[in-house]
Amino acid sequence: MACNWQPLIDLVARGRRFLLTTHVRPDGDGLGSMKAFAAGLRQQGKEVALIIPSSTLPGRYDFLDPDKEFTPFALSMEQQRQADTIVVLDTGTWNQLADMADFVRQSPAQKAVIDHHLTQDDLGAIRFVDTGAEATGRLVHEALVALGAKLTPDAATAIFVALAMDTGWFRHSNTTPRTFALAAELVSAGAQPPFLYEKLFERSSLGRLKLTGLVLGRLTLAENGRVAHSCIRKTDYSATGSIPPDSEDLVNWTLGIAGVEVGLLFMEQPAGGIKISFRSRGAVDVARLAQQFGGGGHAAAAGAISQGELEAVRDRVLAALAQVM
Amino acid sequence: MACNWQPLIDLVARGRRFLLTTHVRPDGDGLGSMKAFAAGLRQQGKEVALIIPSSTLPGRYDFLDPDKEFTPFALSMEQQRQADTIVVLDTGTWNQLADMADFVRQSPAQKAVIDHHLTQDDLGAIRFVDTGAEATGRLVHEALVALGAKLTPDAATAIFVALAMDTGWFRHSNTTPRTFALAAELVSAGAQPPFLYEKLFERSSLGRLKLTGLVLGRLTLAENGRVAHSCIRKTDYSATGSIPPDSEDLVNWTLGIAGVEVGLLFMEQPAGGIKISFRSRGAVDVARLAQQFGGGGHAAAAGAISQGELEAVRDRVLAALAQVM
Repeated sequence: MACNWQPLIDLVARGRRFLLTTHVRPDGDGLGSMKAFAAGLRQQGKEVALIIPSSTLPGRYDFLDPDKEFTPFALSMEQQRQADTIVVLDTGTWNQLADMADFVRQSPAQKAVIDHHLTQDDLGAIRFVDTGAEATGRLVHEALVALGAKLTPDAATAIFVALAMDTGWFRHSNTTPRTFALAAELVSAGAQPPFLYEKLFERSSLGRLKLTGLVLGRLTLAENGRVAHSCIRKTDYSATGSIPPDSEDLVNWTLGIAGVEVGLLFMEQPAGGIKISFRSRGAVDVARLAQQFGGGGHAAAAGAISQGELEAVRDRVLAALAQVM
Repeated sequence: MACNWQPLIDLVARGRRFLLTTHVRPDGDGLGSMKAFAAGLRQQGKEVALIIPSSTLPGRYDFLDPDKEFTPFALSMEQQRQADTIVVLDTGTWNQLADMADFVRQSPAQKAVIDHHLTQDDLGAIRFVDTGAEATGRLVHEALVALGAKLTPDAATAIFVALAMDTGWFRHSNTTPRTFALAAELVSAGAQPPFLYEKLFERSSLGRLKLTGLVLGRLTLAENGRVAHSCIRKTDYSATGSIPPDSEDLVNWTLGIAGVEVGLLFMEQPAGGIKISFRSRGAVDVARLAQQFGGGGHAAAAGAISQGELEAVRDRVLAALAQVM
């Protein structure tokens, strides 16, 4: 359902000093939404602080922040305590606010949530939630239109990042005609797809690409080619010059082979145990599989952590998978 | 410049048996354009043959052709000789028609070219050429509108494939607001981005991914991180279960590292010699570099084949590159 933006217009009219935030491990939708909404507020003469519940801005998004405006949350900051309005973007739950939850709970400021996720806690905020939106960035775009804000090139770029990251660069099933229509408008307003693609997807470290190479080299098929799996060992990080976060998303390669329906990546954890990432093209519900190993997730993407040696965990998971294929 | 489609409307009115074709090594734009244009012609009761100057349809595009309509060129085929109208899509040069060139030259049929490439020979055809179009698929869309054809889901899918492949899935510099606007229309008409992304980009062979792994594992930086290079040896194909065409596009990984301006991939050729692929983020003109090794291409993407051992060729190219960086 579309949002009624009048309460937001009223809230903005009442506020002077805004604090914008998003969820832990902030992503392109959260950060892009913050930045674009900040631009609209500043056009109306508001003071705006951009606070993230994270110790640093992920390097992938540094290009969104040439003026180093995104600030890690720290309770002592005067700016944070002085905010008369808090706007939480791209989440509506306490646990996603992590260390900021107490601050938000105790703050006497007026509060709003702009979000597209289904799960919502009562944050004591006016909620602008549309679960039909592919990204919170779309809702921020609607809010800017409602506020009469001008879509500057910076704001268009920030919303494009939000839209592109939450749709997997226009390829996931949440990509609709209106996704492309909004992208057209954002590019007209100054967003540059080649520049943004490079910044978001083509700035790996050498170590991350070498680790990717190891994962690809170890790909193995099972169940007559319907399953593909690979693994990362603890020693691989130092051998390739990579770090554990570099393993993010590598499981997706397991679905890159024709005929594969389920992909698995087994990762030895530095602290012990084996992290298992599950992916499915749809026919097999991998959330149910992950549950057997103490994990969970979605039917198409799930995860678990299991104790034991890598080979033993792998054999157990492959055996469980064979039961349902 | 936009095309005047009236001559095409007249040509279609005169024709009864159409032969559509495209360039050698047919790609998504050529094949998608053929299929979509065929759909429009058939709505008008025309007979249409889809002939490709290639021995087989590339497997990547098999999903476009559930009825096995794309037919390799063979002079003996009755259908080919009987065509009263030949429409060449996505090329306008004799050399790109390869073995079909003589047939097209000698055929008494009326002829049209629908294309977006700059280089055009005189094929004795009415030309519908717009070098400002990001894909020939866009021009076919315009032609279908001019002909009053209905945009069926199959035709929308075929045009989406054309558009997506020639823009690198909406990320190259030819991606404009109207690219996204057309994509919105095509998805409204039935094109499905997640299905198409999987078919086009997520159906590698195990061998191709293992070869990719080798190339990533061998990535090496030079010139203080401004150059990245890797290599493929003749023996790698059998070791990974891949074939030489699997090396296509792997050079693009060399530009995937932050700070890299020029990427190189050296490939031992089964018939001898070293194929060198050059890529540039823009500051270095790699076409000029490729020319020093008897090759050529564009400022951002070029190639050459050089005799000698892989290590010796690599050293020579890196030395030449050091001169210009």
